[in-house]
Amino acid sequence: MKTYDIYVAGSFLKTSEIIKVYNPHSGDLIAETFLAGKDELDKSISKALEVQGEMANLPSYKRYGILMEIAAGIIEDRDRLAHILAIESGKPLRYALGEIDRATQTFIVAAEECKRLPGEAISIDWTPAGDGKEGIVKYFPIGLIAGIAPFNFPLNLAVHKIAPAIASGNMIILKPARSTPLSVLELAKIIDKTQLPKGAVSILPMDREAGNQLVTDYRIKMLSFTGSPQVGWKMKRDAGRKKVLLELGGNAGVVVSDSANIELAVAKTIVGGYAFSGQVCIHVQRIFVHEKIFDAFADKFIEKLRQMKVGEPDSIDTDISSLIDEDNAKRVEDWVNEAVADGAKILFGGKRNKNYFEPTLITNTKQEMKVCALEVFGPVVTIEKFSDFSKAVHLINDSEYGLQAGIFTDKLSEMNYAFNNLEVGGVIINDVPTFRVDHMPYGGVKNSGLGREGVKYSIQEMMEPRLLVKNKY
Amino acid sequence: MKTYDIYVAGSFLKTSEIIKVYNPHSGDLIAETFLAGKDELDKSISKALEVQGEMANLPSYKRYGILMEIAAGIIEDRDRLAHILAIESGKPLRYALGEIDRATQTFIVAAEECKRLPGEAISIDWTPAGDGKEGIVKYFPIGLIAGIAPFNFPLNLAVHKIAPAIASGNMIILKPARSTPLSVLELAKIIDKTQLPKGAVSILPMDREAGNQLVTDYRIKMLSFTGSPQVGWKMKRDAGRKKVLLELGGNAGVVVSDSANIELAVAKTIVGGYAFSGQVCIHVQRIFVHEKIFDAFADKFIEKLRQMKVGEPDSIDTDISSLIDEDNAKRVEDWVNEAVADGAKILFGGKRNKNYFEPTLITNTKQEMKVCALEVFGPVVTIEKFSDFSKAVHLINDSEYGLQAGIFTDKLSEMNYAFNNLEVGGVIINDVPTFRVDHMPYGGVKNSGLGREGVKYSIQEMMEPRLLVKNKY
Amino acid sequence: MKTYDIYVAGSFLKTSEIIKVYNPHSGDLIAETFLAGKDELDKSISKALEVQGEMANLPSYKRYGILMEIAAGIIEDRDRLAHILAIESGKPLRYALGEIDRATQTFIVAAEECKRLPGEAISIDWTPAGDGKEGIVKYFPIGLIAGIAPFNFPLNLAVHKIAPAIASGNMIILKPARSTPLSVLELAKIIDKTQLPKGAVSILPMDREAGNQLVTDYRIKMLSFTGSPQVGWKMKRDAGRKKVLLELGGNAGVVVSDSANIELAVAKTIVGGYAFSGQVCIHVQRIFVHEKIFDAFADKFIEKLRQMKVGEPDSIDTDISSLIDEDNAKRVEDWVNEAVADGAKILFGGKRNKNYFEPTLITNTKQEMKVCALEVFGPVVTIEKFSDFSKAVHLINDSEYGLQAGIFTDKLSEMNYAFNNLEVGGVIINDVPTFRVDHMPYGGVKNSGLGREGVKYSIQEMMEPRLLVKNKY
Amino acid sequence: MKTYDIYVAGSFLKTSEIIKVYNPHSGDLIAETFLAGKDELDKSISKALEVQGEMANLPSYKRYGILMEIAAGIIEDRDRLAHILAIESGKPLRYALGEIDRATQTFIVAAEECKRLPGEAISIDWTPAGDGKEGIVKYFPIGLIAGIAPFNFPLNLAVHKIAPAIASGNMIILKPARSTPLSVLELAKIIDKTQLPKGAVSILPMDREAGNQLVTDYRIKMLSFTGSPQVGWKMKRDAGRKKVLLELGGNAGVVVSDSANIELAVAKTIVGGYAFSGQVCIHVQRIFVHEKIFDAFADKFIEKLRQMKVGEPDSIDTDISSLIDEDNAKRVEDWVNEAVADGAKILFGGKRNKNYFEPTLITNTKQEMKVCALEVFGPVVTIEKFSDFSKAVHLINDSEYGLQAGIFTDKLSEMNYAFNNLEVGGVIINDVPTFRVDHMPYGGVKNSGLGREGVKYSIQEMMEPRLLVKNKY
Repeated sequence: MKTYDIYVAGSFLKTSEIIKVYNPHSGDLIAETFLAGKDELDKSISKALEVQGEMANLPSYKRYGILMEIAAGIIEDRDRLAHILAIESGKPLRYALGEIDRATQTFIVAAEECKRLPGEAISIDWTPAGDGKEGIVKYFPIGLIAGIAPFNFPLNLAVHKIAPAIASGNMIILKPARSTPLSVLELAKIIDKTQLPKGAVSILPMDREAGNQLVTDYRIKMLSFTGSPQVGWKMKRDAGRKKVLLELGGNAGVVVSDSANIELAVAKTIVGGYAFSGQVCIHVQRIFVHEKIFDAFADKFIEKLRQMKVGEPDSIDTDISSLIDEDNAKRVEDWVNEAVADGAKILFGGKRNKNYFEPTLITNTKQEMKVCALEVFGPVVTIEKFSDFSKAVHLINDSEYGLQAGIFTDKLSEMNYAFNNLEVGGVIINDVPTFRVDHMPYGGVKNSGLGREGVKYSIQEMMEPRLLVKNKY
Repeated sequence: MKTYDIYVAGSFLKTSEIIKVYNPHSGDLIAETFLAGKDELDKSISKALEVQGEMANLPSYKRYGILMEIAAGIIEDRDRLAHILAIESGKPLRYALGEIDRATQTFIVAAEECKRLPGEAISIDWTPAGDGKEGIVKYFPIGLIAGIAPFNFPLNLAVHKIAPAIASGNMIILKPARSTPLSVLELAKIIDKTQLPKGAVSILPMDREAGNQLVTDYRIKMLSFTGSPQVGWKMKRDAGRKKVLLELGGNAGVVVSDSANIELAVAKTIVGGYAFSGQVCIHVQRIFVHEKIFDAFADKFIEKLRQMKVGEPDSIDTDISSLIDEDNAKRVEDWVNEAVADGAKILFGGKRNKNYFEPTLITNTKQEMKVCALEVFGPVVTIEKFSDFSKAVHLINDSEYGLQAGIFTDKLSEMNYAFNNLEVGGVIINDVPTFRVDHMPYGGVKNSGLGREGVKYSIQEMMEPRLLVKNKY
Repeated sequence: MKTYDIYVAGSFLKTSEIIKVYNPHSGDLIAETFLAGKDELDKSISKALEVQGEMANLPSYKRYGILMEIAAGIIEDRDRLAHILAIESGKPLRYALGEIDRATQTFIVAAEECKRLPGEAISIDWTPAGDGKEGIVKYFPIGLIAGIAPFNFPLNLAVHKIAPAIASGNMIILKPARSTPLSVLELAKIIDKTQLPKGAVSILPMDREAGNQLVTDYRIKMLSFTGSPQVGWKMKRDAGRKKVLLELGGNAGVVVSDSANIELAVAKTIVGGYAFSGQVCIHVQRIFVHEKIFDAFADKFIEKLRQMKVGEPDSIDTDISSLIDEDNAKRVEDWVNEAVADGAKILFGGKRNKNYFEPTLITNTKQEMKVCALEVFGPVVTIEKFSDFSKAVHLINDSEYGLQAGIFTDKLSEMNYAFNNLEVGGVIINDVPTFRVDHMPYGGVKNSGLGREGVKYSIQEMMEPRLLVKNKY
Repeated sequence: MKTYDIYVAGSFLKTSEIIKVYNPHSGDLIAETFLAGKDELDKSISKALEVQGEMANLPSYKRYGILMEIAAGIIEDRDRLAHILAIESGKPLRYALGEIDRATQTFIVAAEECKRLPGEAISIDWTPAGDGKEGIVKYFPIGLIAGIAPFNFPLNLAVHKIAPAIASGNMIILKPARSTPLSVLELAKIIDKTQLPKGAVSILPMDREAGNQLVTDYRIKMLSFTGSPQVGWKMKRDAGRKKVLLELGGNAGVVVSDSANIELAVAKTIVGGYAFSGQVCIHVQRIFVHEKIFDAFADKFIEKLRQMKVGEPDSIDTDISSLIDEDNAKRVEDWVNEAVADGAKILFGGKRNKNYFEPTLITNTKQEMKVCALEVFGPVVTIEKFSDFSKAVHLINDSEYGLQAGIFTDKLSEMNYAFNNLEVGGVIINDVPTFRVDHMPYGGVKNSGLGREGVKYSIQEMMEPRLLVKNKY
């Protein structure tokens, strides 16, 4: 069994508090690593502040070199890293490989963006008060950042904080999820081999107290959190003067218009609904299909469901594996049962076996059922019919969440209606809300978050504008 | 009868060569003005160069003040100016009023844009060679500009050269069409009352020789021409080192898909086809209608044609009046007759009476007929049916011209196909190619021109980028 | 004596709680107005939400028309409004007129910017996952905004919240300072005459409870506060999921290099130091002068101080008048006395008379004295010498605040050093930190705030990005 | 001896017309290649047009992949390519290696920029005419491009046309200089190995007739020429409707202020003046030094000149080698002799030996001497003193050329003066006009050219904007 040292202020070390990491599907113990406490955190903070000036002044060719070297390091070790990611998270290998590739891409985009930090030359002489003057707006690094990453994309969602932090000349302390610290600790080893100033990045699984300090410590200038709404909004409250970026959950919806390509819509929603057992912030949770094509859609959808292969995460043939833990599997089971008790009908699946929950399709739901209203974070999809497109859009809006939505249509007027009216961060036409490429702006409104990630957008959040007004002549 | 002095180097004066200006519909002599010769041109050039430094350094609040004052001056005198514009050009009063309002708007947009000249702060340190350096790109006025404007929008197309020239800190010598110099000479009076340095704008109707000098004189740094392709492309050849911007003609096409709103498509194409008797660069010349709706469309279209009112330009009820001169009316007549001789069928109109040509609709045309292939610049529209959307798009492309195109559709896929494949400067969805608002980028490809107008875009063409590389630290 | 109704949900009305407004210099009662309570606030919120759809879809030409009409309304009534502003705040008339002009300009800029809301077309196909797709990012209004404005620029700092709110299609409830509600209630009358949907703007002086509700009410999506750091940061904590923008205080510093133009530096710092008795967030509080020119600078500075005229605010000759209230005048007196007791030396002024405090210049200070370390918000300036430019920069940074800084220099290397190292929102070369034009990005770092105002920048803060991903072909 | 096939429409082939390539320093024959005639050109044009649709629709990840693969191919073969470049051009190895690295960087930048093609979402509803509409501006490839490259940077100046052409989805036919076709034919082999559609790039050394056809053929949509002004401006005349980009010559000037760092100024101007024997468009030709520091500067400069090592191009120790041919060496000799005859004084060098001309420094020149007024394109630098900074700026402007200028100063006011007044494309502060990094905008005004290169800027020139106006709702 392997042991992973944690990455504290530029050094790999052990602490007295051991974390055991298990394969959620097989239940096997796969590795041990360590919790950072107050000491490790303080050391990481101090060291980060020591290299602040160096980071801020690192020329872009050096930042670029470091980020591209990390990208090369990941891709070189693609298969091994995907295996680790798969078994620590229960993510089927096909998706784990995809995540490795996306993490590589996230670093490449960050490398490119660090050469393109925003900057504006503006005129100042719009009134006599500004006569003879001109302005330049440049963006400076905000300072030390705390990043908190979730278990569902253990590598790439951490990278979405680390890569832009480096690109923008900042330092970051990254707390991975306790259940999935391994792939990001592998990343630490790759980072450590580069010329990045030691201490600019620390990777610390943390106990609760140290975690709280991340939120409250005044030396940290920004908190970037991906996780649950309850935790996220509380952190916003406690963060003091910090800038806070929150990427929280959702119960993403899809509308399938009668002008849609049904084959495409089925193929996409199957993947969006069940990939990694729906443990994805933008997993397809609610599908609304036009009544004219509802039956055709549902039949094809169920046919595809029948073909899904259950299995070990670390197999390339596996479509679906276990949830992250039994608590979550039970919670999903309870919600489904509750829905059924209240009149919903299971079209497919619905059963649990330890950590595993079958891919499930439900209809006859009500908007206020948990499987509709809350974030299910499991392989459960609801499907309902509609007759009026605008009503389907408002059913999607009738939710506390607003991350992304998918619309299958070939009508310009429906595309416009959806884009203007959906209260979400992203509207995906002819694809699922689960669609994300790493350079696009990504984030939610309402209960789903605050601010945007997506390399360039994260970089902007991690920098402070500073205006220079100077003589023009 | 009124006499208009020309505006030479900041002074209003007469020359020995008189131009007589007639109402093209009634044939009445309405005013006299004068031709500038070499002397007036040289004087205008010298004076313009004298104020070059002053213009370049005019703070934006002064430029803004001057441009807004001109806009206010035009709108204050709206009715009188529209009357003059109507009778010098034969443009029905409703459209003449519209042109006055647009000229006002063009100045307002220029006033706003002069405060927003482009400027960029860029990083230079992408390689070790640029270490410690940073860059700023600013835009500087190009110098003296020659503007040549056509008769069909005697005011607003001149304003599209004058307003951005002032906004960008340049000087301009504007040559109006010989047949329609009055409204722009009225504008000269408004300009002259402002604080604009005298000589920054000259308005000179010209004889041929002076016109040629505009093209070849090395002291002029840019030529901005709106007019016919033959003249325009020859000017490009003779312009020496000058920058050349050409806004030339077209034979704009419209496609009406079976998903379109027919009422809307008819209402819009009637205006686009016959406003100002089609003497508009982006007049609707060719309509392609899906076969499923062709008859319904054609019937409604002809019904509307029946309701058009012929009359004096200077009446608010007039829909259509005479062409600019009899030569043009005869040319249009010839083209129509030629088409009919080759198999085309007149669905409506087709007759000439002196300068007047009836609003005309033709079908059964061939792509190589003059009414299809050349710029008709008259009230003639062709209508044909299609069964496949992509073929209709390629029929529009099968032309020497490429200015704008209109597509009536509610299909996203058709919008995408049209936008990706139409070889034009602008694709207008659910409206006619004739659609133009004054701040949008406007201009053609292929035989239709070079460069873009539309205030912000003209301003960009009228400025030279200059890079400053400086120490970062 | 005049009575001012408050502007609740589109109606002017009285409440049972009267506020009396006094001239701070003469102590005369000048007007009465009213406090809004929970009822008025709830009514304002409900009505605002009713017009949300209408506001969001107001085309830009209508927004522009409304905003320009308000600007015209202010400028038309310039003298009367300046008088009201002067006597409610104690601001000398010359500066009150300046504020009226700036408020006009803020509306004009907002009118222009509402036509230029940001929007981006981005490519999505950076990896095979995005093949065939493209993206558009548009910005949508955030929803109902709460604006809280201070007494020191009673009109323009309220306008900096109202104008961008209208421009971005949002609704706003604005709470003016209790001591200075009159000029913004005059503005309400001007706004009410336009076509702005009733209820989009409410102007409510408030009691404490209603004020708290502004911060906590979940229907309000953004809080934009200008005022003291203590209050501001507490509001951030209590604001729930709201976006929070804070414009707080500062103790702005100036560095005068030995390469500076001394005459210019003195003339500018006198105005920056004592205009409106230093009751300005970016008032010049600390001056650091190179030792070579210290004596020459100080002599000229004191000479100018001798020439300042004390008087009634509503007189065009007055340079300086009373502070907003006696509490503040006493606080300033205490801080000065405390500094003197600790070794500081008064070079000029230092005495209080009721609400009035003399323009005061102090030297021999220590960084930790209140007159240096805290925001003095009074006519007190400290002056110290330095020998090394970089040390002067770090003295400015040695503060909890970071709003703007002024640097007088003709050395490129000093400009670069200052811009790279000053921890502030704006660095003003050869002018005072007090420099602000209304379209420039404005705001602080550290204790001085969060986010940026300056019309375009406020608008950006008041909008949510929304991504559309669509088929490219 | 090696034979290089030329790269015609995706195939390597020989023609009947042989070109012999010699080492300009040793005179040795180093390789043979071939001239393309009308047949090869027509074949290249036809094939390019065949793949036009494929190129235009190549997703950005494929363009990126191809461009990065080319970059990798160059850097992998760095030493061998540098050797070839050195001996075909006479460029000392140190600079040849630098050029290889820059060509690599140019491809990398193009790879990055192809993902960031410009695109704008604009509002259309500024007037009631645009109500309910919105716009998107996208940029489409212009079509087939002809690139003509010079001998002095045989690889990188060709790459500055090829790389942006690929990035923007265009096809290009590149004509290298007859004397230096080898390194770009090596590049052809690297390009040919990638997935780039065959025929998208052709590399054709040409006879005169085919060269003329490049300019006049109507199927070619853009001409991008780097070379001499005489040829360039004539091409502009003959280019028909083509867009024309010209990168021509210069006689770049440097001003050394009394506030400058003399050591730095000497070190930089030595390299800028003599690297590759001054056969660089932005070579330092004229130095103006403030009288206070003239002697110190001149002494140090001459000391450095004494240390320069003459030798074979293909040696890492060589500082200076022969000119490209004897004609040019004689021309330089003539100009220097003419200057001396007219009163100029040689401070260093001045002698010729076959193709070799000594590094030469001249003073006491007059502005109208050829060594000042024309482009010397040889290792000749003039040095003069000045007392007034603004006059030195105007001496630089007193020239037909305007490419870049270098200013050594630490005065902000001098930097501003220079930037505002120098009629050039780029002002380089504290470095030589010879400074260029490959992503910066680069190009001249006046006789020095038209348009800008620098990857992103070239890409913009190689694309046509197209506006989509669509329904907003």
